[in-house]
Amino acid sequence: MSTAQPVAGVAAERTHLASAETPLRVAVLGCGTVGTEVVRLLTDSADDLRARIGRPLQVAGIAVRRPGRNRPGIDPDLLTTDPQALVGSGDIDLVIEVIGGIEPARSLILTAMENGASVVTANKALLAQDGATLFAAAEQAGVDLYFEAAVAGAIPIIRPLRESLVGDEITAVIGIVNGTTNFILDKMDTTGAGFAETLTEAQDLGYAEPDPTADIEGFDAAAKAAILSSLAFHTRVTSADVYREGITEVSSTDIASAKAMGCVVKAVAICQLTAPGPNGEQAVSVRTHPAMIPRNHPLASVGGAYNAVFVESKSAGRLMFYGPGAGGAPTASAVLGDLVTVARNRLRGASGPGESSYAARPISSIDTVVTRYHLSLEVTEAPGVLATIAHCFAEHSVSIQTVRQQGRDANAQLVIVTHPAPDAALSATVESLRELDVVCEVTSVMRVEGE
Amino acid sequence: MSTAQPVAGVAAERTHLASAETPLRVAVLGCGTVGTEVVRLLTDSADDLRARIGRPLQVAGIAVRRPGRNRPGIDPDLLTTDPQALVGSGDIDLVIEVIGGIEPARSLILTAMENGASVVTANKALLAQDGATLFAAAEQAGVDLYFEAAVAGAIPIIRPLRESLVGDEITAVIGIVNGTTNFILDKMDTTGAGFAETLTEAQDLGYAEPDPTADIEGFDAAAKAAILSSLAFHTRVTSADVYREGITEVSSTDIASAKAMGCVVKAVAICQLTAPGPNGEQAVSVRTHPAMIPRNHPLASVGGAYNAVFVESKSAGRLMFYGPGAGGAPTASAVLGDLVTVARNRLRGASGPGESSYAARPISSIDTVVTRYHLSLEVTEAPGVLATIAHCFAEHSVSIQTVRQQGRDANAQLVIVTHPAPDAALSATVESLRELDVVCEVTSVMRVEGE
Repeated sequence: MSTAQPVAGVAAERTHLASAETPLRVAVLGCGTVGTEVVRLLTDSADDLRARIGRPLQVAGIAVRRPGRNRPGIDPDLLTTDPQALVGSGDIDLVIEVIGGIEPARSLILTAMENGASVVTANKALLAQDGATLFAAAEQAGVDLYFEAAVAGAIPIIRPLRESLVGDEITAVIGIVNGTTNFILDKMDTTGAGFAETLTEAQDLGYAEPDPTADIEGFDAAAKAAILSSLAFHTRVTSADVYREGITEVSSTDIASAKAMGCVVKAVAICQLTAPGPNGEQAVSVRTHPAMIPRNHPLASVGGAYNAVFVESKSAGRLMFYGPGAGGAPTASAVLGDLVTVARNRLRGASGPGESSYAARPISSIDTVVTRYHLSLEVTEAPGVLATIAHCFAEHSVSIQTVRQQGRDANAQLVIVTHPAPDAALSATVESLRELDVVCEVTSVMRVEGE
Repeated sequence: MSTAQPVAGVAAERTHLASAETPLRVAVLGCGTVGTEVVRLLTDSADDLRARIGRPLQVAGIAVRRPGRNRPGIDPDLLTTDPQALVGSGDIDLVIEVIGGIEPARSLILTAMENGASVVTANKALLAQDGATLFAAAEQAGVDLYFEAAVAGAIPIIRPLRESLVGDEITAVIGIVNGTTNFILDKMDTTGAGFAETLTEAQDLGYAEPDPTADIEGFDAAAKAAILSSLAFHTRVTSADVYREGITEVSSTDIASAKAMGCVVKAVAICQLTAPGPNGEQAVSVRTHPAMIPRNHPLASVGGAYNAVFVESKSAGRLMFYGPGAGGAPTASAVLGDLVTVARNRLRGASGPGESSYAARPISSIDTVVTRYHLSLEVTEAPGVLATIAHCFAEHSVSIQTVRQQGRDANAQLVIVTHPAPDAALSATVESLRELDVVCEVTSVMRVEGE
């Protein structure tokens, strides 16, 4: 074997020596919605996959927690409750990990790699928390780690960032990357209903999990934002680096307010390079939160459970990628695209791109992020109220763009939109506003993005 | 070297033996808008490209026709008028071909490959006419042939089709892939102006070439459609296989008619698998022509010189890719993305995907394509005209969905929209209509797509 390509393990050895008829052996870890669909397609599309790869694929085993469960179309003899034994057997070429979560997924992936298998995973949480360990293990073993399914389901976004745009300078990636929150906010926009009842409806329809925390509190989007910014900015970014706000505080009043100013409320993941400092240095700013975006922005029309990712780069300009962001079949499509690619790589004794973190840019604090803000305040209606409030903004150097008063007397409400201001200045303003006698309540604070 | 990866030539040999500081030598063929931008970025982004590849790149030579021309920022010592000598020298690792056209581009690419260089090209005409020869040569030499820039400029679409969706079954690719015609039709839609004057305006603004034939007659879109359908359907498709109509016959009346029925006129490239035959066999249908598409279709809102490609597949569902479809910087972004990828492949002793034409599906005739049609007829206004015309449609088994009469007396015009019908039946209908005494003229026939 060439010294240029360290490939470890019995499996890799066998791959190279085998004939064109010897199958590549695939282990599938997890057999939920995505896993079931993957196994079904591995069977139904076997001839096409074989032609595209140049070798047949053979499912060597499927690791499940509950082997007794009814799984139509899946050969029960392939099921095992011992995933470590499956990936550690040394005769697996390709591992598909669709268990999710940190453990046992991480240990299984590491064992698989040590045993010479390439890995395809949809595990955003693990990649965002500890991608570096996985990349290092893949590099060490000379195997592939592919993860197109981890962000935005079937939408090809990982490969475009990792390969298509790798000769360009990406400056921003802005995405609607969580279908559940997009479904809820879209429904609230259409029906005028509140968050709680819309969440219940989404749960009834299967668009939200029984425990919706990961989606509605932004953990899922934060993990995806970490992965996207790592790739876009050649910098290691983990989910802990991502500023995160969920959508639980979004009210029907916010949505109506957004409408009134020609905007729509979306849960966005925003990955940006900050403006260059005195020596040209740029930091990475990563956050996920609800935001008002103009209705004519390409992301505004992304409805239902769809996802979209908007990429800005120096040479390519503005690109958008749109499609189904979740679901068994779309996610399985992404998994199988990766599977064919890593299988082809394997047969050519090659491996795809590894981690690229050479730029090692610092992560900027949310305090320094500059955006416009939309605020709603309940105020007492007395002479001089506006002057008092305007003074409070001025003290913190936050400039007001528009003020609108809604209601009168006891229900007087001020809706204020600021000019771009740093988050820290806005937070300090809000704190001061809360201390004013004329302010009964700060009912909502939301960023305005995408302008 | 491993027997698994045939790599020919002095250049490849040198690549493997060299140290991490030995540059990969790049030849650039052509120094027009794209070539100039590529060379500029190779210099300006040298440090980033080096970090991303793991080796520096060095521009070894730039082949031009007119060396005396003023080229700011380009080292005149790199220029040569002998491209064959440049690519045949045996010490070039990577060749960027942005000359365009068939010859000398083809000979140069073949020479480059025989001498062990990997090739990145933006040459849609050559790929669509004779891609098979290039792929075979690349396979033979064990080098890469990448061509993201050949279709839709900076929009990553080649790699998603070739890799991301390779585990899926693509059923249709529908794109706005020519910025010039989209600019013209978009302008006509906005201003109500005719084709000829809008073309002149587009030429004045630099959106159309002095000789606009390739764009307005659909040759450019046909080449791109051939490339897209080859990749999507794993079948060799050449530009000669593509049914082609230009936009020169599109009138302001057509555009107004489209508006009246909630549509917009777009020049589309359509690549489809036909409905399965009795034994499940499917053919490839490829065409480019102007069409009316509903204003709520994602492609309808693609304005100006932008491009968009809509992909439908069995598992992934409906995806859309959107961005700048032409221009020096966007095209250079695509070229450099490929360059980094083939450079990485080279350093790993690997090569990317080759031609995939195993499915070898037949190409279906335009006659069998089933769509709805929009027709405008100038008719004499006499009793029984509609009955006569309706009878003519019925004779050819073309079912009418709506009829609208505009104007009266000498200016009477019938606007007819059909139910879906095969192209051959519609063509026969039009021929019969022309022979009717009551029909003065068939002023326009246009397909209605995207429903």
